[in-house]
Amino acid sequence: MEIQDTETRLIRDLGEQGLLKIIQPFCPIGIVGDDAAVIPRPDRDSLVITTDVLVDGVHFSDRTTPPHSVGWRAVAANLSDLAAMGATPIALTVGLGLPPDTSVAWVEALYQGMTDCLRTFGGEIVGGDLVRSPLRTLSITAVGEVDQTHSIQRSQAQPGDAIVITGYHGLSRAGLELLLNPTVPGVNKSDRGWNELTEADRQRLVRAHQYPVPQLGVGQRAAQFDRVAGMDSSDGLADAIVQICRASGVGARIEALPIDPALQNHPQSRDWTLYGGEDFELVLCLAPENANQLLNFAPSTAQVIGQVTTDASQLVVDIAGEMRSIGLEAGFQHFNSSPPPG
Amino acid sequence: MEIQDTETRLIRDLGEQGLLKIIQPFCPIGIVGDDAAVIPRPDRDSLVITTDVLVDGVHFSDRTTPPHSVGWRAVAANLSDLAAMGATPIALTVGLGLPPDTSVAWVEALYQGMTDCLRTFGGEIVGGDLVRSPLRTLSITAVGEVDQTHSIQRSQAQPGDAIVITGYHGLSRAGLELLLNPTVPGVNKSDRGWNELTEADRQRLVRAHQYPVPQLGVGQRAAQFDRVAGMDSSDGLADAIVQICRASGVGARIEALPIDPALQNHPQSRDWTLYGGEDFELVLCLAPENANQLLNFAPSTAQVIGQVTTDASQLVVDIAGEMRSIGLEAGFQHFNSSPPPG
Repeated sequence: MEIQDTETRLIRDLGEQGLLKIIQPFCPIGIVGDDAAVIPRPDRDSLVITTDVLVDGVHFSDRTTPPHSVGWRAVAANLSDLAAMGATPIALTVGLGLPPDTSVAWVEALYQGMTDCLRTFGGEIVGGDLVRSPLRTLSITAVGEVDQTHSIQRSQAQPGDAIVITGYHGLSRAGLELLLNPTVPGVNKSDRGWNELTEADRQRLVRAHQYPVPQLGVGQRAAQFDRVAGMDSSDGLADAIVQICRASGVGARIEALPIDPALQNHPQSRDWTLYGGEDFELVLCLAPENANQLLNFAPSTAQVIGQVTTDASQLVVDIAGEMRSIGLEAGFQHFNSSPPPG
Repeated sequence: MEIQDTETRLIRDLGEQGLLKIIQPFCPIGIVGDDAAVIPRPDRDSLVITTDVLVDGVHFSDRTTPPHSVGWRAVAANLSDLAAMGATPIALTVGLGLPPDTSVAWVEALYQGMTDCLRTFGGEIVGGDLVRSPLRTLSITAVGEVDQTHSIQRSQAQPGDAIVITGYHGLSRAGLELLLNPTVPGVNKSDRGWNELTEADRQRLVRAHQYPVPQLGVGQRAAQFDRVAGMDSSDGLADAIVQICRASGVGARIEALPIDPALQNHPQSRDWTLYGGEDFELVLCLAPENANQLLNFAPSTAQVIGQVTTDASQLVVDIAGEMRSIGLEAGFQHFNSSPPPG
């Protein structure tokens, strides 16, 4: 095995987890690692802060996301990080890098999208920075607050917990597929069902991709229980469960993976549901009696999909009786992969 | 005059102020416009939030700023925005866009520079985001707090106020010049004095560029007065005075422009002092008796350079008896200009 010093080592050789290990010594212990940082404040609610950076061609593209949607998604992603901590949004800043040949209309639609999302879910843009840049970049920081004794952390899961998720997963990925590869009904027989999607389902999937909904209400309700572990599913349902298991030193068994009816006929429906990402739903682990209370609070969206186990080596997923085991060691490496922009 | 609709108008045709006018309708009135946003919180200190975005080749470059300095300057710029509001830093988030061929050493040095600045002046990195990007981008958001009845705002200057600045201006620009065009002593006779700079002065100027010092102590002291107007001089001394005058509906007369002794012999010393930028000093307008108290608080750095006037049309600068008048209408347009990176 070749040993390289840090002068010549490149970050693509480290992967995302390796890079995080490089950076963590520079950040306070215990604060970094969740969807957002929780900063305790004496005698008052804790502050919660989260930042997302989006780069044109990597995280969004004119092909799949009009500027109004870029703005909505960017804000929704940050609000989802606050939701994953049980926090209430207060304020956002927007750092925008723009090439000088960007149209005014693009900028206006971007801000309209951000503002429309904020009007729906709370919080407001209070400032930011505008700079010249060779490519469009968007950096949003959201600040929220949460009762200092109640917040959701990844590391709090315990064997026997019920695993509760909101909504369906894979819809954003399916919507991206429809945007990237618009299909003509009936042309490809193997995808017959997919190509015979109703127009309403098509619009619903595209909307799931372009206009995700942060689960602030469910997050705030869940944070009121004495103990709750969780995060949002921005990097996929399986990733969220794996991250919670690794942080908590537990395993998980998924017994009822819900697949949206519109996805049933697509050959990749299971992969999209497990790994699609960007659905911005919540994945929560909590005592079964609290899980029931949460289901009563949000009966239209929350459901139990499995339970936390003592086997800290694997996540077992039962898909219609076919078992799939996912090791918990490796984690997922997004930094050096090249997913389609969306 | 040709009228274009927003579909075809480009942001380079608007300039920075024009672009801000497009964006301001999407932000709450009264919060945007200062160095940082002040968010009132019931029964407690106000939150202060500021964001800076830095792009490789636009705001920094390997030629003039090693990664440790890029980190220090980025944090110092944000802390300076907090200083300009009289705030105390609490926490920072760091959004980093990196090409996969970035060396690990570059990332480590960047974080070391940020951490060294924070250890010196307060605040800590609590989180952020790491993403793949075709070029290096760095977005920092700093959160601080300030007593809700005391903060520094640009719009509070009144005729008769003394104008107080910290430190000298133009040093960062002079240091950049030394980095971009290292001179050989005695080669160019017209720049003789400049080329005969002592090594200590050279190092001091380069250090002013690479390791600026945010004026948190002076800002916090100034915020305790009943009324104080001000901002930092990140875009230059003249720009800061112009911005305060425009926000307050007043003019200004500078009677004693201090020029650092090391710059005296350079033909551009006055322009650098007025327009150089990135010195991250404070420019404050306050009642003469409060100005005296501030000078007693910071005798080694604070000095009175002039006074606020009723003539809201101009800033008059008396440089050794030679009058220069700067109109207050146009403002400065940084967005479509191309300053050397630094």
